[in-house]
Amino acid sequence: MKFIHTADWHLGKLVHGLYMTEDQRFMLKQFMELVEKEKPDAVIIAGDLYDRSIPPTDAVNLLDEVLYFINVELNTPILAISGNHDSAERLSFGSSWYQKNQFYLNGKIENSFSPVSLAGVNFFLVPYCEPVVVRKMLEDDTILNHHDAMKAIIGNLENNLQVNEPNVLIGHSFVLGGKTSDSERILSVGGSGCVGAELFEPFSYTALGHLHSPDAINHQTVKYSGSLMKYSFSEARQKKSVSIIEMDEKGNFTQKYHALTPQKDMRELEGHLEELLDVNFYQQQKVEDYLKITLLDEGAILDPIQKLRQVYPNVLHLERKIENKDRKEKSILQVQKEIQQNELELFASFYEEMTTASFSEEKKDWMASVINQVLREEGQK
Amino acid sequence: MKFIHTADWHLGKLVHGLYMTEDQRFMLKQFMELVEKEKPDAVIIAGDLYDRSIPPTDAVNLLDEVLYFINVELNTPILAISGNHDSAERLSFGSSWYQKNQFYLNGKIENSFSPVSLAGVNFFLVPYCEPVVVRKMLEDDTILNHHDAMKAIIGNLENNLQVNEPNVLIGHSFVLGGKTSDSERILSVGGSGCVGAELFEPFSYTALGHLHSPDAINHQTVKYSGSLMKYSFSEARQKKSVSIIEMDEKGNFTQKYHALTPQKDMRELEGHLEELLDVNFYQQQKVEDYLKITLLDEGAILDPIQKLRQVYPNVLHLERKIENKDRKEKSILQVQKEIQQNELELFASFYEEMTTASFSEEKKDWMASVINQVLREEGQK
Repeated sequence: MKFIHTADWHLGKLVHGLYMTEDQRFMLKQFMELVEKEKPDAVIIAGDLYDRSIPPTDAVNLLDEVLYFINVELNTPILAISGNHDSAERLSFGSSWYQKNQFYLNGKIENSFSPVSLAGVNFFLVPYCEPVVVRKMLEDDTILNHHDAMKAIIGNLENNLQVNEPNVLIGHSFVLGGKTSDSERILSVGGSGCVGAELFEPFSYTALGHLHSPDAINHQTVKYSGSLMKYSFSEARQKKSVSIIEMDEKGNFTQKYHALTPQKDMRELEGHLEELLDVNFYQQQKVEDYLKITLLDEGAILDPIQKLRQVYPNVLHLERKIENKDRKEKSILQVQKEIQQNELELFASFYEEMTTASFSEEKKDWMASVINQVLREEGQK
Repeated sequence: MKFIHTADWHLGKLVHGLYMTEDQRFMLKQFMELVEKEKPDAVIIAGDLYDRSIPPTDAVNLLDEVLYFINVELNTPILAISGNHDSAERLSFGSSWYQKNQFYLNGKIENSFSPVSLAGVNFFLVPYCEPVVVRKMLEDDTILNHHDAMKAIIGNLENNLQVNEPNVLIGHSFVLGGKTSDSERILSVGGSGCVGAELFEPFSYTALGHLHSPDAINHQTVKYSGSLMKYSFSEARQKKSVSIIEMDEKGNFTQKYHALTPQKDMRELEGHLEELLDVNFYQQQKVEDYLKITLLDEGAILDPIQKLRQVYPNVLHLERKIENKDRKEKSILQVQKEIQQNELELFASFYEEMTTASFSEEKKDWMASVINQVLREEGQK
């Protein structure tokens, strides 16, 4: 049995005010080619097909095209669940028809308990679901969080596990051990959004979505595929890929990563303005990439974003290193302390904040003499 | 060939702030029973399946259930188009899969030109479409309005008409001769939203949606089925039904109306408050109906809607007959005229407006004497 595991397509996503739909189309084209070449027995999409419950219509059209190509034209079964970004109801419309062509799309937790069997492997499709919904459905008041909910779901499907065949769970959860990135919605505070990896012990493979890095968890059988592409600068250093799994009849498997190449990469660039605008420098760069630029310059700079965009049209975020550091670290206590500073110290703080340069001893001496002179003149009045 | 023609379900519609979904479910239950009993060769839904491009999720679930029952469980082909209230893109998602089970859902005008052939009849599915879209697609700058657009579409599909078999067009348009009601969105001013019925001459039957009354047009072969149920008080006197058509191989047909009975009717009630609240009167009434009540009482009444709702819980609209008439007819010219009226006339207008009773000669004489007395006292000051 060979299957491809992907997740977190987030079609229709806006990143820094830009729709990613054309970039997503570019990635999905490669994905379709991969499916055509690999001829897997199934494609798994582990949730967050869309970025929101009501996606823009071109994202709707894109998903329709891609799934049609894979499922109908290539005749490849699809196993998909809704994630926390999808509207389970809207996404599930028509799923009874899709099923007739081995496109299994599950948005309803009550359909998680009986598996879809393909080529000797049993797939349990567990969509993202709020704990309160599971508590109500199973009439179990002890379910308080995502871990409890997943435990109860797995407990309820255990009777349907095939002992002589591999079982695979498809889920969309924050499984403990994972590293998060900015673009994953933080679901709850204090760890109640987390699910312990040990719950998935009965499964030969657990195909997860939700966290965007394939490295988010380090586990033998519990795996994230990672998102289709980078969706925030906190993911800039992640390698995006899909997983190709070949599983034998005992559930042993090999995993191969297949990287997808973005039309425009999302990455961070750091330097002085002059250097970044130097033709010798930017000739070596893919200037069309989506960039977060951190300027190292001291002192005031007039409209740096306009200057940078003449070379790098897709600068999405600009920051200045020291300035930013200062701002982040400023607490109320510090502000109060500033008020107590004498004039010279106040000016020094102000100077450093405005220019990002340090207020040297030389500058300090010069400024002290200016302040003294002003104070003397004040006293003569 | 037997088919059932319906249209304008408007699932998810809000009427006077109330969601109609449960009422729609009640109607559609009867419709499903009818399809089960009649065993037609096809069911036609001529647009406006939803009331808006993003319907509430329970409307999405309802449509899914109903179409699944008809198409998959009863194995009845469905021919449906998107109307002006639907989002063609959102509704069309998955239509390539549906088609494999003879559920033909067309939201794209470019798919209108080749027919779906069922039981010896050729159906052309023409979704609602803005003239500018047709103009662009056909690269024809002479297309300025809906009539031009429909003419061009029919001109383009004429080559695909089967001369020895009946041809049926399914459309969603305001065809000339129709009577409108409040709940149909007025599309454009000056008749440019209208389409001449003569265009449909090549078709043995034209199955229309858009106007909500089956009587909206009086034509031999061009027919509205009417909406699923009443959606405004202007439709209160319409009889709602679906049409059962039996067509022979020459395209001759018989039409049978099948009425659907609402859970709560939508109707108008007129009378004096005391009479409407009289137990002998309301015992004869279906008090749960959706009501527009017109009160005939003169004079001020304290909070009549609260009193009425104790008996008629679903009063959606209350008006008072004369008051309303006066307000509607008042123009700026009339207001200016009022300012010029002398005191007696002013008071008479005020009296009529506040009480809805006429200012009789007797009342006028009495008021004239009061005014005279006041004016005399004023003069003595």
